[in-house]
Amino acid sequence: MSTPDVAPAPPLTFVIFGAAGDLTRRLLIPTLINMTRSGLIGEDLHILGVGIETGGVDMLLDRLESFLKTSGDMDDPERQAAWQSLRKRISYISGDFTQNGVYKEISDYLSHAPSANAAFYFAVPPQFFGDIAEKLSENGLMNEATGAFRRIAIEKPFGHDLASAQALNARLLNHVSESQIYRIDHFLGKETVQNIMTTRFANMMIEALWNNNYIDHVQITAAELVDVGTRGKFYDATGALRDMVPNHLFQLLAMVAMEPPNSFDAESIRNEKGKVLKALRVYSREEAIKNGVRGAYTAGPIAGRDLPAFTQTPDVAPDSNTETFVALKLLVDTWRWAGVPFYLRTGKAMKARDTEVVITFRPVPFAQFPRHESRPELPPNRLIIQVQPDEGLDMEISIKSPGLVLKTAPVSLDFRYADSFDIGKQTGYESLFYELFVGDQTLFQRADGIEAGWAAVQPFLDLWAEGGKPDPYAPGSTGPACADELIERDGRKWHEIDGIPKGRKF
Amino acid sequence: MSTPDVAPAPPLTFVIFGAAGDLTRRLLIPTLINMTRSGLIGEDLHILGVGIETGGVDMLLDRLESFLKTSGDMDDPERQAAWQSLRKRISYISGDFTQNGVYKEISDYLSHAPSANAAFYFAVPPQFFGDIAEKLSENGLMNEATGAFRRIAIEKPFGHDLASAQALNARLLNHVSESQIYRIDHFLGKETVQNIMTTRFANMMIEALWNNNYIDHVQITAAELVDVGTRGKFYDATGALRDMVPNHLFQLLAMVAMEPPNSFDAESIRNEKGKVLKALRVYSREEAIKNGVRGAYTAGPIAGRDLPAFTQTPDVAPDSNTETFVALKLLVDTWRWAGVPFYLRTGKAMKARDTEVVITFRPVPFAQFPRHESRPELPPNRLIIQVQPDEGLDMEISIKSPGLVLKTAPVSLDFRYADSFDIGKQTGYESLFYELFVGDQTLFQRADGIEAGWAAVQPFLDLWAEGGKPDPYAPGSTGPACADELIERDGRKWHEIDGIPKGRKF
Repeated sequence: MSTPDVAPAPPLTFVIFGAAGDLTRRLLIPTLINMTRSGLIGEDLHILGVGIETGGVDMLLDRLESFLKTSGDMDDPERQAAWQSLRKRISYISGDFTQNGVYKEISDYLSHAPSANAAFYFAVPPQFFGDIAEKLSENGLMNEATGAFRRIAIEKPFGHDLASAQALNARLLNHVSESQIYRIDHFLGKETVQNIMTTRFANMMIEALWNNNYIDHVQITAAELVDVGTRGKFYDATGALRDMVPNHLFQLLAMVAMEPPNSFDAESIRNEKGKVLKALRVYSREEAIKNGVRGAYTAGPIAGRDLPAFTQTPDVAPDSNTETFVALKLLVDTWRWAGVPFYLRTGKAMKARDTEVVITFRPVPFAQFPRHESRPELPPNRLIIQVQPDEGLDMEISIKSPGLVLKTAPVSLDFRYADSFDIGKQTGYESLFYELFVGDQTLFQRADGIEAGWAAVQPFLDLWAEGGKPDPYAPGSTGPACADELIERDGRKWHEIDGIPKGRKF
Repeated sequence: MSTPDVAPAPPLTFVIFGAAGDLTRRLLIPTLINMTRSGLIGEDLHILGVGIETGGVDMLLDRLESFLKTSGDMDDPERQAAWQSLRKRISYISGDFTQNGVYKEISDYLSHAPSANAAFYFAVPPQFFGDIAEKLSENGLMNEATGAFRRIAIEKPFGHDLASAQALNARLLNHVSESQIYRIDHFLGKETVQNIMTTRFANMMIEALWNNNYIDHVQITAAELVDVGTRGKFYDATGALRDMVPNHLFQLLAMVAMEPPNSFDAESIRNEKGKVLKALRVYSREEAIKNGVRGAYTAGPIAGRDLPAFTQTPDVAPDSNTETFVALKLLVDTWRWAGVPFYLRTGKAMKARDTEVVITFRPVPFAQFPRHESRPELPPNRLIIQVQPDEGLDMEISIKSPGLVLKTAPVSLDFRYADSFDIGKQTGYESLFYELFVGDQTLFQRADGIEAGWAAVQPFLDLWAEGGKPDPYAPGSTGPACADELIERDGRKWHEIDGIPKGRKF
């Protein structure tokens, strides 16, 4: 077990609702194993599983262990040792979490636990978020009057539109205070996403350029190679817009566009991120028609196999008009960003896995360079924040092409995380759980930011609910033609979706 | 022979004064071989050697050929073929170039040559520059009235102080017009030096930051690993200041500090470079005392051998007060650079061969980042233009160090020429000779710039002529302690002299 650069989390019980489900074994336990290994949690962390399944703790341990064996998690002796240490501290309560009985048992458990601190993780369908929070509160489990902390951790979706998000927040806040709610957006657990703020505010060379004097436009892309697969039921009811935009993409947008916070504490940062999301222009119906396009993938080959069309996916309605791709042009109405469009796009079954933020700078005011047939235009500078894969930064600039004629050539100054740091095998939730346990809400979303995000996408939801169909796009492509038209009518082009490897040559 | 990206040079005779000397075989002929190989010169270029040595063209060809064989130039069949092609077009005139007879022979040769175009290269000691120019002119060889071009190419030193530089320019310009004079500074033949202008004026990300709002200071270093060696006589009479500063280092400074030219033609660029050099503050004696330091290396080990002290070098006076190291703090009195010091240093027998320009940016206006014992200060951004070796660009920025604590880590975004371009084996003179042959003076120095450079260093020459000794420094070090004091009293530090390899880790 390595020595962490921080103190281990305080004693607490981590209560998991839905402990016997897929999320627990696939994500929560591996995260806790990693945290044990790296010394972020110690012997005073206890796990209390809660679920409808019967069979006691042996049932739960069997399920977890058989998954860990097939997943390869137990191949590493250090991880195996961490699991052996962790499993001794796992308990289980069987029951229906819509009924009070379970909560009385939890209360009883906590009153005898070494520490009364507790974090409740809701690994359950989102329609139960409000119910569980209400029951926890009604049974006195959210009461921090004794000095012990009580926190809930939930993960999106936080509503499925503005009204439902407002209703969920209202209901949660009726029972639990904002300071007890940890809304997880797993993008915020990624080093490259957290690094956006550091890159901006630790570097004069970057932040001096970070405004509409120098930036032409911003592109935020989250392209997935994977298709909808076995998640047809969830995805048909959700679509690319709801699934990715008001949460993940808007978190990236907020990191890129926020003003410098007064300090790096949670409230200062969440205030600034909230301000930006509230400054997203809420479009009229006519503006939404012009500034948003959607697509759905057709049948075709991708990654060496034949993919059925989205509408032929199991549990998807054959006449579904749900989108698997969305591209938006958004505006941030602030002094800093006036006139700088933010182009966002995300989709499934695309050309490559590629999550990136691309900042395109304005051209130089006057180019004295002679033009050559082979390269008539001086390309603008770009800063590419590669979120995944191949995490890193690229600055694309022009230099003199060696030779006797004054010709420019674009080159990339690049930095790859993996070249300089051993970031190891992580789930991406380690930092989020640690912050949950120590009580730092910086990496978690606040109600106002979530509602501002939904407000900005609501015009598109309303428009597309009127009918119509997403445009088709081939699997393995960069999306439908209408997405190219959206940006090209402004004289701009999407950045390549390529997950291009480092050391690119020109 | 490869196809060049430009048309070959026009027909001409390349007349070399001092053809049998070391410079011709070591540099001029290899350059012409490279230019033949790459198609920059063709069969219509003829070479006329001039020298005091007797023995005719066979003597010259023997000398050249025996050097080329020992230098390894003939190991490559393509280079050998280029030489075989070139040697057929070499002629030789023996005589004293202070007498008219030689010039009559040259005139006779040119009147029978396929083309009357001629470029005269002065591979002779600088005290003869004026004499040869005068004789060329008096014998009608600089007359372009027939439409043929006549050019002279000379290489530093251009004078040994302001007065002698002014006198040399006046004498040259009495006989030859400025448009016929090609003053070579071989630093300007380097791709990385030529690239400074492109890097600045082709990139909004760079040029937007290029002023005293964002730049804290500039460092220009030309550190040499080599010692004075067999060049004691020349060096003792010259010293590091004269040898490097008003020429090479000031050319770098001018590239870094110039305003954007109206166009990239020779006059526009030389106007802007001249303006910057004329804006260098000319110090009073008291200011020179404060802003310049000198050193001379002592005896000691370097690169695995024992080096005698500079004053023990053959042909150096044992009581010499000539400097082998100089460091200056200079100011450029322009709107753009007011308040931004330029620190220059150069020396022999230093830690490594390392020629670089380092731009240090101002710190961010407000650092919200928590300070940590391991790294109490956020380092400023730096742009490093690595001129040699390992030519390239490095941008040093801070990113988030992976992990749970918000800590910054400095990283380098880098570009290396050799990774992206095949720059091949070159002498560095190929582009200079090509421009000489086609008549583009962009890469050559103009009289006004040279005189402005001498004016800026004259206060140091005067001060050190009063007496005193250079401070001692050990071979293989970074120079004398007084150089560190020069910059550290401003709260700054010299950039490491390390010729650090690419892919540096932190």
